[in-house]
Amino acid sequence: MRASQYYLATLKEAPQEAELPSHKLMLRAGLIRKLASGLYSWMPLGLRVLRKVEQVVREEMNRAGALEILAPPIQPAELWKETGRWDLYGPMMLRIQDRSEREFCYAPTAEEVLCDIVRKEIRSYRQLPVNFYQIQTKFRDEIRPRFGVMRSREFTMKDAYSFDADFAGLQKSYEAMYQAYTRIFTRLGLDFRAVAADTGEIGGSGSHEFQVLAGSGEDAIAYCPQSGYAANVELAEALAPAKARGPATQAMRKAATPGKHTCEEVAGFLEMPIEKTVKSIVVMHEDDMVMLLVRGDHMLNEVKATKLPGLRPFRFATDGEIRARLKAPPGSLGPVGHGIRVVADRTVAAMSDFCTGANEEGYHLVDVNWGRDLPEPEVADIRNVVPGDPSPDGKGVLEIVRGIEVGHVFQLGTVYTQKMGVTYIDEKGGTHPMEMGCYGIGITRVVAAAIEQNHDDRGIVWPEPMAPFTVALIPLGYRKSEAVRTAAEDLYAELGARGVEVFLDDRDERPGVLLADQELVGIPHRIVIGERGLKEGMVEYQHRRDASATKVPLAEAAAFARSRLIQGKDPVAP
Amino acid sequence: MRASQYYLATLKEAPQEAELPSHKLMLRAGLIRKLASGLYSWMPLGLRVLRKVEQVVREEMNRAGALEILAPPIQPAELWKETGRWDLYGPMMLRIQDRSEREFCYAPTAEEVLCDIVRKEIRSYRQLPVNFYQIQTKFRDEIRPRFGVMRSREFTMKDAYSFDADFAGLQKSYEAMYQAYTRIFTRLGLDFRAVAADTGEIGGSGSHEFQVLAGSGEDAIAYCPQSGYAANVELAEALAPAKARGPATQAMRKAATPGKHTCEEVAGFLEMPIEKTVKSIVVMHEDDMVMLLVRGDHMLNEVKATKLPGLRPFRFATDGEIRARLKAPPGSLGPVGHGIRVVADRTVAAMSDFCTGANEEGYHLVDVNWGRDLPEPEVADIRNVVPGDPSPDGKGVLEIVRGIEVGHVFQLGTVYTQKMGVTYIDEKGGTHPMEMGCYGIGITRVVAAAIEQNHDDRGIVWPEPMAPFTVALIPLGYRKSEAVRTAAEDLYAELGARGVEVFLDDRDERPGVLLADQELVGIPHRIVIGERGLKEGMVEYQHRRDASATKVPLAEAAAFARSRLIQGKDPVAP
Repeated sequence: MRASQYYLATLKEAPQEAELPSHKLMLRAGLIRKLASGLYSWMPLGLRVLRKVEQVVREEMNRAGALEILAPPIQPAELWKETGRWDLYGPMMLRIQDRSEREFCYAPTAEEVLCDIVRKEIRSYRQLPVNFYQIQTKFRDEIRPRFGVMRSREFTMKDAYSFDADFAGLQKSYEAMYQAYTRIFTRLGLDFRAVAADTGEIGGSGSHEFQVLAGSGEDAIAYCPQSGYAANVELAEALAPAKARGPATQAMRKAATPGKHTCEEVAGFLEMPIEKTVKSIVVMHEDDMVMLLVRGDHMLNEVKATKLPGLRPFRFATDGEIRARLKAPPGSLGPVGHGIRVVADRTVAAMSDFCTGANEEGYHLVDVNWGRDLPEPEVADIRNVVPGDPSPDGKGVLEIVRGIEVGHVFQLGTVYTQKMGVTYIDEKGGTHPMEMGCYGIGITRVVAAAIEQNHDDRGIVWPEPMAPFTVALIPLGYRKSEAVRTAAEDLYAELGARGVEVFLDDRDERPGVLLADQELVGIPHRIVIGERGLKEGMVEYQHRRDASATKVPLAEAAAFARSRLIQGKDPVAP
Repeated sequence: MRASQYYLATLKEAPQEAELPSHKLMLRAGLIRKLASGLYSWMPLGLRVLRKVEQVVREEMNRAGALEILAPPIQPAELWKETGRWDLYGPMMLRIQDRSEREFCYAPTAEEVLCDIVRKEIRSYRQLPVNFYQIQTKFRDEIRPRFGVMRSREFTMKDAYSFDADFAGLQKSYEAMYQAYTRIFTRLGLDFRAVAADTGEIGGSGSHEFQVLAGSGEDAIAYCPQSGYAANVELAEALAPAKARGPATQAMRKAATPGKHTCEEVAGFLEMPIEKTVKSIVVMHEDDMVMLLVRGDHMLNEVKATKLPGLRPFRFATDGEIRARLKAPPGSLGPVGHGIRVVADRTVAAMSDFCTGANEEGYHLVDVNWGRDLPEPEVADIRNVVPGDPSPDGKGVLEIVRGIEVGHVFQLGTVYTQKMGVTYIDEKGGTHPMEMGCYGIGITRVVAAAIEQNHDDRGIVWPEPMAPFTVALIPLGYRKSEAVRTAAEDLYAELGARGVEVFLDDRDERPGVLLADQELVGIPHRIVIGERGLKEGMVEYQHRRDASATKVPLAEAAAFARSRLIQGKDPVAP
């Protein structure tokens, strides 16, 4: 492609509202343009990237035996009412009435529609398993769309749905998708982790997220380099301390802590390590109040807490509820001296001589001990793991890295198929609900995540398999120098004939503009052709990640650039 | 692809509601499944066809220099209000409120959004021309969705929008699209005509429709085989008769025509040719009543009538209005004896001694003559052309054929760009609105239209470029006969290695089922492999259009089939 026949629209500055590097760079490089809040147009350069991601996803889904379909994004409410999700989804679902006032939604996902297709199409065990997928626009009416296409309202998703006769079949289908996803993100050239994840609201028996590693990621991942264990922090188990609880050494006493409310403040004021303090968090399930205890420097894990008996779902208690039931203000709470149910994190249960609120404004209790000053607590894992925690597989120590969720695979089991009557008849004539899995990839988000992981202060550094063009030819003085123009055109023809996606920047712009645009747009390989170099028969090759350029004889430039390409080489070949 | 790893879902019968052959066959062959009224899921086999159409469209749009983008289907009302189309579109437009109660629509087309993109992006004449296109889902909330994907509510459209500095540029862009469309439908293997069309509500200065010829088509096309003239009947000019008006030969008289209202009834009753009768049609523009006259066997052309001075827009008068103003009931109307404005079609203006209603129930006037019995009329072309009419280019005689509109190209001029402020700055610093063109192809409708044109009583007969698979291998007894299985597998491997899209029907079904499915699904080439033939070393090749099979030696079968393919041959190469 020639720049003069293309549409390059780079910007010096990104709009103020763009916070994340990927959002800024996608706007500055002209990949996307905003139409309205959470709605983006993909411009020619951006769409090329999007299509490359789609194509890799499509090839690997097909290779895994999944069959591509295309279901309508506008879906009738009746189907969503069968599973109860018409009400569950709330305002996140974009609801629509047609001219006959019949209710529809713009699909945020498609379990219901696929269940409807399969229950009408498939009757016999002989037709199973099937795995249908689509690459389709979805809509989630986010309350605060942000970060460009990272959390937009409209987005492209690859969603797949497998149907099996039994649980062993589901596990096989799930494994095939897990492997396909691994191939997909490997082929795209991304640094990612498949991490065990909570199944959350969607239900089911097993789940992994595929996370592209990036410091700006919203998700925290517990990762053990020694064993390869990886899980979302939401799920990663915090083991009980290896060391048993120490003996009580001091009598419990009440200490004045005027104006000190957080564990940090109290530990500082009382000159003790924060690891001796305990944080008390009061939550409600309907009318039941429960006090959850985690060590002062630890964080409550809400997903784990939801799984405690009697706490699904829970909410945080209000100030009023706390004052009414505990006769004490928030910031002074503790487990001693009241009849409220107390659940201590495993770490807290192993503490002795610890400090906690006195349920009295301005006071804390010091040297508190279980079984002496208060009853032995109910114990559970209710905190987030932290760096240095032992890996739950017992084979090393956890690190915490940040990631962007780009894919998710779920074993749904029969949650949906039972509600919607998606059944098959077995060899003996018996009827059973099918075992279902669902598998999503946020196609548009993959583009943003790739940029979060691959950029520098000059612009995007595309992994080659996602780059809009592979090689940039930058002639300095294309319009003025016939030698430059001829050399550029020859290279353009030679690389193009070899199937290389080459971008010839034939615009009448200053060299600085041409080079800055190439770096901003992130084309991985570039060849600069200048009159001075040509006098010695040389051009300059530089990879976007290289610190400096390499002089290459003009005659060998195409071959040299091609030797640097990964294009055509299969990174996941066995 | 092997049938055992694919999803074939053929039906013996189509649902009752399917009327058109394409609708029936798409359901029976398992290309689509209905989700709700006017909403269809594309199943694996159908999606393969759809993607082939998309790919040909994409390649030819790119070849013509258009740049692919992807704009959101959910679009803010504000943009549509700028052109006034938010109100104009009426209930055909699916309107949506988001969680903040802001108004959006599911786009039926995208002129406004493209104008918005271009006015923000492009400032200088040096950036022009541009032509952006997308292949995107659209929605039109049809009052009566029918004929499957022929007139569905949700459909895939390729829509392109060109922006030029001046009208000469627009004409060049338009011509490039006209040529691209011609290549597209030629490459798809369809029999089509590009026909001059009315620009209608969308406005602008020129327009062609691309019509796939099919007896079931909704559109009538006036076509002159001698000159190649082709126009939608809505537009095709009906010339004035070559022969001048004859003299009056009889005195006007009133004839009793009890219970006779239509021209056919009156002509039969009075024993005169219908060509001697005149039909009177009463229409209203606001409060103005106008009587339109066409010959008894001709049809009023509403598009032409709309273009009469003072009739944009018009509607048919109600019975009450007719009785109040003409003191006569419908079925007895005529131009004699009242002061209502009369417009006569050119043919009617050349008639003498004609018959028309007497404005009195049960009576008609016979031997009426212009200038004698009533004033000379206002004359205009307001009828549809009929077979045998002279071609408007004066070079032959018109035929009427029926077509399905699959593409439409428009010269919009500055209708939208003026309203939306889409301007550029010229070389001298002056500001001008851009000249805009728009160009649509109904991708999903192309699939249905292709079937309307290419089917028989056994099923679909795909043009090879659109076929889901190119060659069907049909082993008779794949599971039972090792010889059959080996021969089938060898052919499958050999054709596959040559890049042929081959479908191996390895299902354990009776030969009749396998052959019937191939004919229903419409795979163009088939090779039947049976034990009996293999004993003589032969297999049977048959094209879907061939009356009978050809015996071919097994060893030559792949080469023979490939020699029959058009795959890879460019039907539009210069």
